[in-house]
Amino acid sequence: MQVPKASDVLANDLRERILRGEFAEGTALPPERELVVQTGMSRTTVREALRILEVQGLVRVKTGRAGGAFVQHPGEESVAESVDLMIRGRKIRIPALLETREAIEPACARLAAHARTEEDLDRLEVANDDIVAAPDLEAFLQANIDWHVGVATASHNELLTGFMLALSRAIYVSTRNTQFVDAEVRATTVRAHRSVTAAIRAQDPNAAVRRMTRHVHTYAEAVLKVEERTDVDVQDG
Amino acid sequence: MQVPKASDVLANDLRERILRGEFAEGTALPPERELVVQTGMSRTTVREALRILEVQGLVRVKTGRAGGAFVQHPGEESVAESVDLMIRGRKIRIPALLETREAIEPACARLAAHARTEEDLDRLEVANDDIVAAPDLEAFLQANIDWHVGVATASHNELLTGFMLALSRAIYVSTRNTQFVDAEVRATTVRAHRSVTAAIRAQDPNAAVRRMTRHVHTYAEAVLKVEERTDVDVQDG
Repeated sequence: MQVPKASDVLANDLRERILRGEFAEGTALPPERELVVQTGMSRTTVREALRILEVQGLVRVKTGRAGGAFVQHPGEESVAESVDLMIRGRKIRIPALLETREAIEPACARLAAHARTEEDLDRLEVANDDIVAAPDLEAFLQANIDWHVGVATASHNELLTGFMLALSRAIYVSTRNTQFVDAEVRATTVRAHRSVTAAIRAQDPNAAVRRMTRHVHTYAEAVLKVEERTDVDVQDG
Repeated sequence: MQVPKASDVLANDLRERILRGEFAEGTALPPERELVVQTGMSRTTVREALRILEVQGLVRVKTGRAGGAFVQHPGEESVAESVDLMIRGRKIRIPALLETREAIEPACARLAAHARTEEDLDRLEVANDDIVAAPDLEAFLQANIDWHVGVATASHNELLTGFMLALSRAIYVSTRNTQFVDAEVRATTVRAHRSVTAAIRAQDPNAAVRRMTRHVHTYAEAVLKVEERTDVDVQDG
């Protein structure tokens, strides 16, 4: 028989209350000593429960005089972290990452064509300029991620954005050590990004989907071709 | 200045070693007292570090004589949990859930048409039979999830499966309290599932994508129509 741990019981209770909105974002949970009185649990147990919530991204613990456990709602970042743990732990290979990306990015482009703001468009243009100006591979790959995450952000769908954030990091790591990115790849990337960006700007969802589909598919094929030769492993990044 | 906590430092170190494969899945980490000796950290700190890894799904702690912190690699379940926290905490609304699903499910169907095994097909047939035989709404919704997660599983892409698992739970909660599912919806669902299943069985990826796209889109439109009337909220499930 599994007896639930007291700290899990308290963490579950506080978690539900946070998610129900009983503790608003940015407010502090009751201080440790108060939770001890309220629950009759030991100080160690209360501390452990708060630590669990911290690891899950539900509170941020600040120490010092104005300290406390401040409520936050986990977002793209914590989804990205758990996806990252899965990708690395399960050694999910590049083909699976690329397949997932081919599912998600065209949908992001479609939604972005509907929902994009001027600010979103500016972010995409900056990322494209950064790709052109990138002095080295590292800078190119970072600007490349910025553009792809920028399209996801412009979809204004937090869930898809969280998935893309996680994916693009993993793909970044997997392509960092390859000889894959030459001048031609960079030029092709810039052209493809510009044409997707134009469709998003023009609020043309069909063109955005079509161009993004082609772009990520072409990229996937190129990576897989290199991978066959060098057996690039996402783990070794 | 942020001084890192000793327990975080130790948890980070152990996490990296687990992900690198230094501790294989199913093996135990060194016992607490040994970690205390190795690191010079206090017993409380070591315990806290192990608790962090447990919350992140990287170890399972068993108590008792044959106990210890056993290494596991977080998978679909932990991704689904973090997505669930985000959906509930950020109050991600049904349209965003449905958009994400429309991105992911057709891709799952396409991959399933390539990768499905006999076992996968059996699972899909069982879920379809369960839908037909479902005595009440609860049973219908559960069998419905089983089929959709079954298609994702048949894609043999763990990442997409993790995303679908999380999504389908959220969609389940969001439709549980509606008057949305009547006899006609059930009949339509069964027909759609059977035709997607047939395409997957026939290893026809194009038909699988086309039929799944239509199915999830039709469903999304129906839910959104009901939602307009009743303002169903994913939070209230």
